[in-house]
Amino acid sequence: MKIKPLADRVVIKKLEAEEKTKSGIVLPGSAKEQPQMAEVVEVGPGGVVEGKEIKMEVKVGDKVIFSKYAGTEVKLEGQEYTILRQNDILAVVE
Amino acid sequence: MKIKPLADRVVIKKLEAEEKTKSGIVLPGSAKEQPQMAEVVEVGPGGVVEGKEIKMEVKVGDKVIFSKYAGTEVKLEGQEYTILRQNDILAVVE
Amino acid sequence: MKIKPLADRVVIKKLEAEEKTKSGIVLPGSAKEQPQMAEVVEVGPGGVVEGKEIKMEVKVGDKVIFSKYAGTEVKLEGQEYTILRQNDILAVVE
Amino acid sequence: MKIKPLADRVVIKKLEAEEKTKSGIVLPGSAKEQPQMAEVVEVGPGGVVEGKEIKMEVKVGDKVIFSKYAGTEVKLEGQEYTILRQNDILAVVE
Amino acid sequence: MKIKPLADRVVIKKLEAEEKTKSGIVLPGSAKEQPQMAEVVEVGPGGVVEGKEIKMEVKVGDKVIFSKYAGTEVKLEGQEYTILRQNDILAVVE
Amino acid sequence: MKIKPLADRVVIKKLEAEEKTKSGIVLPGSAKEQPQMAEVVEVGPGGVVEGKEIKMEVKVGDKVIFSKYAGTEVKLEGQEYTILRQNDILAVVE
Amino acid sequence: MKIKPLADRVVIKKLEAEEKTKSGIVLPGSAKEQPQMAEVVEVGPGGVVEGKEIKMEVKVGDKVIFSKYAGTEVKLEGQEYTILRQNDILAVVE
Repeated sequence: MKIKPLADRVVIKKLEAEEKTKSGIVLPGSAKEQPQMAEVVEVGPGGVVEGKEIKMEVKVGDKVIFSKYAGTEVKLEGQEYTILRQNDILAVVE
Repeated sequence: MKIKPLADRVVIKKLEAEEKTKSGIVLPGSAKEQPQMAEVVEVGPGGVVEGKEIKMEVKVGDKVIFSKYAGTEVKLEGQEYTILRQNDILAVVE
Repeated sequence: MKIKPLADRVVIKKLEAEEKTKSGIVLPGSAKEQPQMAEVVEVGPGGVVEGKEIKMEVKVGDKVIFSKYAGTEVKLEGQEYTILRQNDILAVVE
Repeated sequence: MKIKPLADRVVIKKLEAEEKTKSGIVLPGSAKEQPQMAEVVEVGPGGVVEGKEIKMEVKVGDKVIFSKYAGTEVKLEGQEYTILRQNDILAVVE
Repeated sequence: MKIKPLADRVVIKKLEAEEKTKSGIVLPGSAKEQPQMAEVVEVGPGGVVEGKEIKMEVKVGDKVIFSKYAGTEVKLEGQEYTILRQNDILAVVE
Repeated sequence: MKIKPLADRVVIKKLEAEEKTKSGIVLPGSAKEQPQMAEVVEVGPGGVVEGKEIKMEVKVGDKVIFSKYAGTEVKLEGQEYTILRQNDILAVVE
Repeated sequence: MKIKPLADRVVIKKLEAEEKTKSGIVLPGSAKEQPQMAEVVEVGPGGVVEGKEIKMEVKVGDKVIFSKYAGTEVKLEGQEYTILRQNDILAVVE
């Protein structure tokens, strides 16, 4: 079973604290309850969205930093995901 | 009797809890009263909507995840439906 | 005497409860005081509206579902009408 | 002395109750203090307004229904007028 | 010393009560403290403003009616002026 | 050391009361704490800003009137400056 | 490990008080808790962002002044960064 995002949307899975520590990324205090690091799980097709051509720049497996409060949370087979617009992804961490 | 949505609108029928459990999709706690999984029942023609070309990407029978609070509820011959814009549909679940 | 709507506006006449029951359409509780089913009485010419080409998709006699709170009410020769933009009409019921 | 409206503006003169009754048009209760029927007195030239081509559709002498609260009131030689954008005129009554 | 407005801005000088009476123009009660009649003193060059082509339609010496609260007041050599966008001028009085 | 504004931004230095008096420009009472006269110190390159072509119309040395509350204040080597968009400059005083 | 900003975003590192003093730049009182001077650490690729062509004008190493409250803070390997849009950068200091 898969979530296939429409248009310029991306499905991400938030990274747990330990994963973030392992990867050396720590977010400041106030963000502790609201982790902003995630891994890209699915990427929409992009194309013309609301009359604007959107090219998808992130790909599955990317570690990304995203806007607080962005997107919609959904649970599928016991795993929580967030669906957001690519524009709510600020950066890729390499 | 049929609801034929205009422009880029889509008619959906929310999935009942049992259907969602059967399909393995569960939404997080706070969304329990507000199920976000639905099946597409009718799809508008798309075309130029508010000056922007909109191509319909969902089709009848698709299981979709949609934005909380989006759309308008209507009851037809005892069945409740929601009419929303395709843009309020976040993803198709396969 | 006729109301000729300008641009992409449409004049509708709300359907009474009995008419709706007869046609098998019932709206959910909260909408009872605010019927959302109506019949199209006049259709504006469409054309370029606020710089966007609008094609009229509804026609006189269509039964439509429209957005709650949309439009302006007006009384003409004892009959109440609502004038709204075509974009506030969600669907045609057939 | 004349008020010549700029761009897509129109000068209207609200119709008095007796005139409306004579013409068979009555507005619903809440609108009684705020008559929405008026006669067009002057019409702006239209043209490109805020980057959009606007064609004037109303003409002097038209009886029109307009949006509540729209426009600016002005008094000239003892007569009150309202100056509003053509887009705030909903319909012509014939 | 001159105020040369930029883009689609216009410099106007509000007309005093006596001038308005003389010219037969009187504004309704609530507007008494806030005179809306003015004379155009300077006109900006127009051209492409915020990506839209704006043609200046008013000229120096025009008597105009303008939007309440529009523009910025400035005092130059003892005389008060208002600088506003041409779009805040509703009509020319002839 | 220089502040080089980006895009359609301009760096201005507010004029002191004495300078304004000397130049014959006085701003009305309420604006006394918030002087709106300034001298242009640096001008950005203009060009395509947010998808719109912006041509810079002011130049270094211009005395300008600007929108109250517009821009961001910054202190460099003991001197205060304001950085604002050219669009927040209302007029040049000559 | 690197933060690679998407689209027209820029990663900056706020300058500490001593650095600012050394460089002769001091920000006014109220901004003391909220330093607005930073060094550019990473620059996004620009290109078509939300349907508008954006050319990146800042480069790594630039000292910049940016809008208060703009952007999102993130901590990576013990160092705090801010990710913002280039449009929130007001000027480069040379």
